[in-house]
Amino acid sequence: MTIRYRFENSLYENVGDKGLKYDDILSYAKENLERHHKDLLEKRKNKTLGFFDLPYDKELVNKINELKKKYINIKNVVVIGIGGSSLGNITLNDAINGVYHNDRDTGLPKIYFADNVDPEKMAHLLEILDPKETVFNVITKSGSTAETMTNFMVLYDFLQENAPEKIKENLIITTDKENGNLVKIAAKLGLDTFVVPYNVGGRFSVLSSVGLVPAALTGVDIEKLLQGAADMDKICSVCDIEKNPAYMAALIHYLLYRDKDVNINVLMPYADNLASLSDWFRQLWAESLGKIDNKGKNVGITPAKSVGAIDQHSQVQLYIEGPFDKLITFIEVEKFRNTVKIPEVFTEIKGLNYLCGQTLDTLINNEKKATEIALTSANRPNTSIILPVIDEYHVGQLFYMLEVMTAFAGELFNIDAFDQPGVEAGKVATYALMGREGYESKRKEIEKELKNKKQREM
Amino acid sequence: MTIRYRFENSLYENVGDKGLKYDDILSYAKENLERHHKDLLEKRKNKTLGFFDLPYDKELVNKINELKKKYINIKNVVVIGIGGSSLGNITLNDAINGVYHNDRDTGLPKIYFADNVDPEKMAHLLEILDPKETVFNVITKSGSTAETMTNFMVLYDFLQENAPEKIKENLIITTDKENGNLVKIAAKLGLDTFVVPYNVGGRFSVLSSVGLVPAALTGVDIEKLLQGAADMDKICSVCDIEKNPAYMAALIHYLLYRDKDVNINVLMPYADNLASLSDWFRQLWAESLGKIDNKGKNVGITPAKSVGAIDQHSQVQLYIEGPFDKLITFIEVEKFRNTVKIPEVFTEIKGLNYLCGQTLDTLINNEKKATEIALTSANRPNTSIILPVIDEYHVGQLFYMLEVMTAFAGELFNIDAFDQPGVEAGKVATYALMGREGYESKRKEIEKELKNKKQREM
Repeated sequence: MTIRYRFENSLYENVGDKGLKYDDILSYAKENLERHHKDLLEKRKNKTLGFFDLPYDKELVNKINELKKKYINIKNVVVIGIGGSSLGNITLNDAINGVYHNDRDTGLPKIYFADNVDPEKMAHLLEILDPKETVFNVITKSGSTAETMTNFMVLYDFLQENAPEKIKENLIITTDKENGNLVKIAAKLGLDTFVVPYNVGGRFSVLSSVGLVPAALTGVDIEKLLQGAADMDKICSVCDIEKNPAYMAALIHYLLYRDKDVNINVLMPYADNLASLSDWFRQLWAESLGKIDNKGKNVGITPAKSVGAIDQHSQVQLYIEGPFDKLITFIEVEKFRNTVKIPEVFTEIKGLNYLCGQTLDTLINNEKKATEIALTSANRPNTSIILPVIDEYHVGQLFYMLEVMTAFAGELFNIDAFDQPGVEAGKVATYALMGREGYESKRKEIEKELKNKKQREM
Repeated sequence: MTIRYRFENSLYENVGDKGLKYDDILSYAKENLERHHKDLLEKRKNKTLGFFDLPYDKELVNKINELKKKYINIKNVVVIGIGGSSLGNITLNDAINGVYHNDRDTGLPKIYFADNVDPEKMAHLLEILDPKETVFNVITKSGSTAETMTNFMVLYDFLQENAPEKIKENLIITTDKENGNLVKIAAKLGLDTFVVPYNVGGRFSVLSSVGLVPAALTGVDIEKLLQGAADMDKICSVCDIEKNPAYMAALIHYLLYRDKDVNINVLMPYADNLASLSDWFRQLWAESLGKIDNKGKNVGITPAKSVGAIDQHSQVQLYIEGPFDKLITFIEVEKFRNTVKIPEVFTEIKGLNYLCGQTLDTLINNEKKATEIALTSANRPNTSIILPVIDEYHVGQLFYMLEVMTAFAGELFNIDAFDQPGVEAGKVATYALMGREGYESKRKEIEKELKNKKQREM
C-alpha cells in the first residue's frame, strides 16, 4: 500500500475564490515543471543533495545491525542532539513505538532526548538514568553545536563519575566523517562512530545514521523504513504534476501563497503518535523555505502544528472564522494498529447511546471527515495525506514525500532550500555572551548597544 | 516578585517601520482605553465573565483540600477531558512537576491525560494503568463532549471490569452544576462532584475546579497558584496603558495586526517545562479571537508554539529572513529551580573550553538574549515576558495576565471573545456521521454531497 494525497478541497470547484483553479495548476506546471525538475535532478546527480539517496545505503544498515547486538540488554537510549539531530528521532519513536513507549513494559529500551539546555529538565534526567544501563548517542554534524556539546559534556561527566568503565561501551558518536570536535574525541576514546554524510543537512537527515541508529536500538525496523522511502522515491521522481504527489503538494502551497496570500501551512495529523511529526516537519519546511529569494524578497510560509481531534477544541474556530491565510493538510490514518470498542454502558442516556458499540477508530476518523466537511463548507482550502497504517514502511514513505515536497518548493520559490544563513547572527551573539575566545569585540559591541537602548518594562 | 513585560523591541525606535511608534500606542489608548476597560469591567460586574473572580474561591480550595485526604496513597491520576478541560492541566503539571514527572520517583501520583480518541494511545494507556490504584477525573462542562464521554465510557468499563468495588471511590466528576449527562451519572453513582461555573468557558477555566482538582492531587500548591492570580488581578485591572501589562500586550498585538499585517503570534518560552503553556495559550488566543467581527470581517491572529532554545534550530531562520508577519513573545525564566554546571571536561579542545565551568542556566538565558538581539537587528518585532521563577505563584500570575490580555484583545477587535460558533458545523457533521438520533437528514445531505464531488487523489 502507498500513501495518497487528496487535494480537491484546495480548488475553486469546492472552496470558490479562496482556492486554485485546476487549469491554473496545470498551466503553471506545463510552463515550469520540467525546468524545476531538471534543476532538482541536477543537484541529486552531482551529489549536492544527498538526502535523495539515503534509502539505498545497505552498508549502513549492516553496520547498525552489528551494533545492535552489543546492546541487547540495555535499559535506556539517550539521544544527545537538537533540531535535525533529535526531531526525526522523536518522530520515529512516537510513530512506531507510541508516545507512551517509556511508560509501557515492552522489553525494549526506553528513549530520552537531551535536546534543550534547560537545567531543570537536565537535573531530572540525571535523576532518572542509571548510567551503567544507558547508551548515549551524541549527534551533531559540525561537532560544535553549543547545546549538544554542553549536554554531551554534562552526560560524559556523569558517566565518568558513576560508571567510568562503561565510557567506551556506552557512548556512540554520530558526526562528520573528518572534521570537528567529536571526531577528535571519538578517536581519542576509541568510540563507535557513525557518519552524517557531507551532503545531507540536519533537517533532511532522519533517514541517515542520525535517525537510524537510535531507532534501531529501540526496536524500529529500519529496513522497512528505508524500503518505504525507496518506493516513494519512484513515485516522487516522476516529472508529471498529475502523478507526483510531492510536486503537486508543493505547487498548491506555492500558488496559494503567491496568488491568495496564504502564509500559514497547518499540518494536522489525526493521531497522537504522529503529533511530533508536525514538529519534525516544522523544521524541514521553515528552515528550508523561510528565506530571501533571488530578487531580495523575504519569502516563506509559516508551518503550524495541529493535532486532531484535540485541536478541534482549540484551533478550528480560528480556521473556520478567522482570516483566509491558511492551507490545512490533514493526515488521516486508514487503519489503526489497535482498535478500542466503545462499551455498552450508560445505554439509558439518550445523548450517549449513539456511541455504544462503535469504536474509537471510527470516531476519530469521522471527526476528521467532519472537520474537512466543515472547513470546505466555509471555503477553507484543505488537503489530505492518507496513511494506510502507522508503521515503518509508510512512515518512511511519508518522510520521503515531505522531503521531496519541501525541496521542490525551494525550486518554486527560487531560493536555496538547503542553507540557513539567518541563524548565524544568533550563534555569534551566543558565543559573544558566553565569552568564547575570538568574540570579545562582538561582546563589547553588544554591551554598548544594550546600554544605549531605552528599556520599556512594566 | 512579579512577572514583567518588556516591549521596546516591538517599537519603531528599535525595529523601524516594522514596529509601532510609541506615541501611536499612547494616542490610541488615550482615545479608546477607557471605553474598552469599562466594557470589560461591566462584563465582570454583571457576572457575564466569571474567570476574573476565580482566584477568590476559598470554599473550593477547602473542598479540594478535603478531597486530597482520600487519595494519599493513590498511584495515578487520569484526567479525562479535551481542549479547555485538559490543556491547562497539562500545563500545570509540566510547569510545576516538570515534563519528566511520570519518569521520576517523587512519591507523588503520576498523571495521564485521556484527551484524544486515538485507539492506539488508549490501548497503551489501558496497558499502563492499574485501575485499583488510579483516580479518574472526568471533566466536561456540557457533559456531552463526544471525545470526553467516549473516553469516560471506555475507562468506566475498564474500572467496572477490573475493580468494580472502586467505582465510587476512584471516580471524580467535574461538570455543570445542574445540566448534562454527567450530572445524572454522578447522582446515580453517588460520586464526588465539582462544578464548572456557568460563566466560565473552557479555555478560561484553568483556575477553576477544572485545573485545580487534578493539580492538587499531584502535589501542586493551589493556594499559591490562586494567590499569584489574585495579585496579578490588581495589576491587570488598572486603566492605564503604561501600568497594565495585559492591556499593553493586547494593544501591541492589535495595532501590529491592523497596521502592519502581522497575522502570527509566536509564544516562545525558553524552558521545556513551559512548552505546553504555549498549547494552552494557543486555544485561549485562537478560539477567543478567531472570529467574524461586528462589521462581518474575518479577523484573528494565528498563535504558533515555539520553544527556545530548541526552535532556534528549526524556526529562527524563518523568523529572521521570512516575511514580516509575526510578533514573537519570549518567556524568559530569571532563576531556574535547578542549576547544572558544565563540567571541566575536554578542556584541551579550543571550540569547547569556553563552556567549561559555566552553567546550563546561563547558556539558555544567553541563547534567549542572543536570539532577541538577532531578531531585533533584523527588524523583527519581539517582546518578552519575564518570569522570576517557574513556581505556582508566578504561573498563577502568568495564566491570569494572558487571560486578561486575551479578553481585552476581544474588546479591541470588536468581537465576542467568549463564544465559539465556528465549531458547531463540525460537531453536527460528527454526530451525523456517527449516526446519532436526530441527525439522519444531515447524514443524507452529507452523503449526497460527497457522492457528487469529484475526488482528486494521487
